[in-house]
Amino acid sequence: MVEPAPGLAREAWLMRQPELRQDTVEGRWVLISPGRAMRPMPHDEPFLTDEGACPFCEGNEQATPPEKVAWRLPHSPADGPGWRARIVPNRYPAVVQTAIPLSGPQVAAVGTHEVVVECPGHRASSVGLGAAHWHGLMRLARDRVAGMSGDPAHGWVQLFKNAGGAAGASLLHAHMQILSVPVVPHRVESMLERARDLGHCPVCRMVEWERSEKTRMVAEEGGLVAFCPFASGFPHEVWICPVGHQSHWETTPEATLQKMADLLWRVLARLEERLGLFPHNLVWQGAPRHHPLAGHGHWMVRVLPRLNGIAGFEWGTGMLINTVPPEEAAGMLAD
Amino acid sequence: MVEPAPGLAREAWLMRQPELRQDTVEGRWVLISPGRAMRPMPHDEPFLTDEGACPFCEGNEQATPPEKVAWRLPHSPADGPGWRARIVPNRYPAVVQTAIPLSGPQVAAVGTHEVVVECPGHRASSVGLGAAHWHGLMRLARDRVAGMSGDPAHGWVQLFKNAGGAAGASLLHAHMQILSVPVVPHRVESMLERARDLGHCPVCRMVEWERSEKTRMVAEEGGLVAFCPFASGFPHEVWICPVGHQSHWETTPEATLQKMADLLWRVLARLEERLGLFPHNLVWQGAPRHHPLAGHGHWMVRVLPRLNGIAGFEWGTGMLINTVPPEEAAGMLAD
Repeated sequence: MVEPAPGLAREAWLMRQPELRQDTVEGRWVLISPGRAMRPMPHDEPFLTDEGACPFCEGNEQATPPEKVAWRLPHSPADGPGWRARIVPNRYPAVVQTAIPLSGPQVAAVGTHEVVVECPGHRASSVGLGAAHWHGLMRLARDRVAGMSGDPAHGWVQLFKNAGGAAGASLLHAHMQILSVPVVPHRVESMLERARDLGHCPVCRMVEWERSEKTRMVAEEGGLVAFCPFASGFPHEVWICPVGHQSHWETTPEATLQKMADLLWRVLARLEERLGLFPHNLVWQGAPRHHPLAGHGHWMVRVLPRLNGIAGFEWGTGMLINTVPPEEAAGMLAD
Repeated sequence: MVEPAPGLAREAWLMRQPELRQDTVEGRWVLISPGRAMRPMPHDEPFLTDEGACPFCEGNEQATPPEKVAWRLPHSPADGPGWRARIVPNRYPAVVQTAIPLSGPQVAAVGTHEVVVECPGHRASSVGLGAAHWHGLMRLARDRVAGMSGDPAHGWVQLFKNAGGAAGASLLHAHMQILSVPVVPHRVESMLERARDLGHCPVCRMVEWERSEKTRMVAEEGGLVAFCPFASGFPHEVWICPVGHQSHWETTPEATLQKMADLLWRVLARLEERLGLFPHNLVWQGAPRHHPLAGHGHWMVRVLPRLNGIAGFEWGTGMLINTVPPEEAAGMLAD
């Protein structure tokens, strides 16, 4: 439990403390996070060039909070140079580690918010470092997420990537983020409920169908598929998932993790080759490990290029408008 | 039924024809609309200044398709000057009026896509024209939407506004859009189902609660309330809705429509006063008039300032991150 700082009224403290609130009209949770507004956020620049020293560059380790874990060269000290990727607390966290309990329908947003710095050099994409680098990177992120998701205090642990200003990034240097919340988000839970209600796994069925249709397949290897989904909501959207039913990406066998890293790297490399540096989000999804419906989840990584905006029609209907048919997108990606 | 143009293969025609596809994993529909990619769309400019002549300005009526309906001065001819607001077909429609029937799980995206030009002068906001102008504007849009939503061929008719590049607008000149689709969108239907399953209207209950809490109220007048919702997903989000249960905004009595226009105008004027020109979406919601659960709908207008981006965490969880607590937002808006 954190006590309010001396001289800071409890009310002011609570105003700054992030909280989760459920919209009773739609059933969705929102995260109200006033402290996050302090984050320096340039507007409308797809790929930001940093003015001063980049806090994610090798040699500037002191500009971030102390690292939680890193992929390091032998004998290199924590928070010094000599690393390939490192995980550090987010300096502008959307959640807090400990909170004053709240009365009322809101829930204190207790969780963890960390940054996975993908590479030591100042580059907007780490794809150029090759597949082997992505194996190590995904292993580092997987271990961190698995350590957190095994603890039921985390309702959900989200690994994601924002690349480029149009995809929500505030810093250029390639990085992912891990953000956990104490509730199970509506989207995560409703996919599990939907699979239960259908009486079958819609991802298993979709994969089977896409493999027979072939027109949207990108690759199939080592028990995983990459394809542009039939109902892609984003131009050049790609899903990567196991052919067989598996609920949690972070506990998948090492060989499958490596294959996922490899396929993801190849898809991103091909997209960069065709589109240049492109704003995108990466989203890892599956199921919370302690959820009673967890077995209904089928994990996947979604590659979401952010070439179109989200506007009023989308907010009103929940329908995305996509200008690139997935058949065309798959044609561009296939070998 | 439209026939393919001579010399254009049926396959190529179908590739260009917009269609609706349902994502079986989430139950959502997406609109695949290749023709929409031809729309000139500058990137990342919040308020675009037009280079050439603006197609929405008075005197340039020939630059748009012939108008469907307009709020005109007496004796002014259609598609000439002398109007206050006009509705024209969208030059880059996301849907088509008639379509080749499709085989397979997709649905031809048959519908109507129109632009409501808010004012004759070249301005990014029509708020400066005053409340009386907004009465006339909302009456024009209401009549058009009501005419369409009475026809069951339209699964849903969405009135919305994109203002500023960050909110999805491609043209500066103030305008709204009307876009109808032949299916009932997942978001619209799931709100109706949720109200049915709850056994009460969550909007009625929320309004009652907000009126007793008072901390997020902005205004109450003529049977309508404006408030910053408890679980606001956007900074400075405002909802305007009737206190009593009403399902359809487009068939509300004239006095209520005028009060809605008035409250909306006041909220927008106050936001502009405090934030300057700000990117935002407006979304009118309620229920499809022919839907069996229509009576469960409670209409509202949502004002969604687009000051934060939507990023990977949001796509993974469905949870929005909002940096401005609604209590603070309401304080800024209250008289």
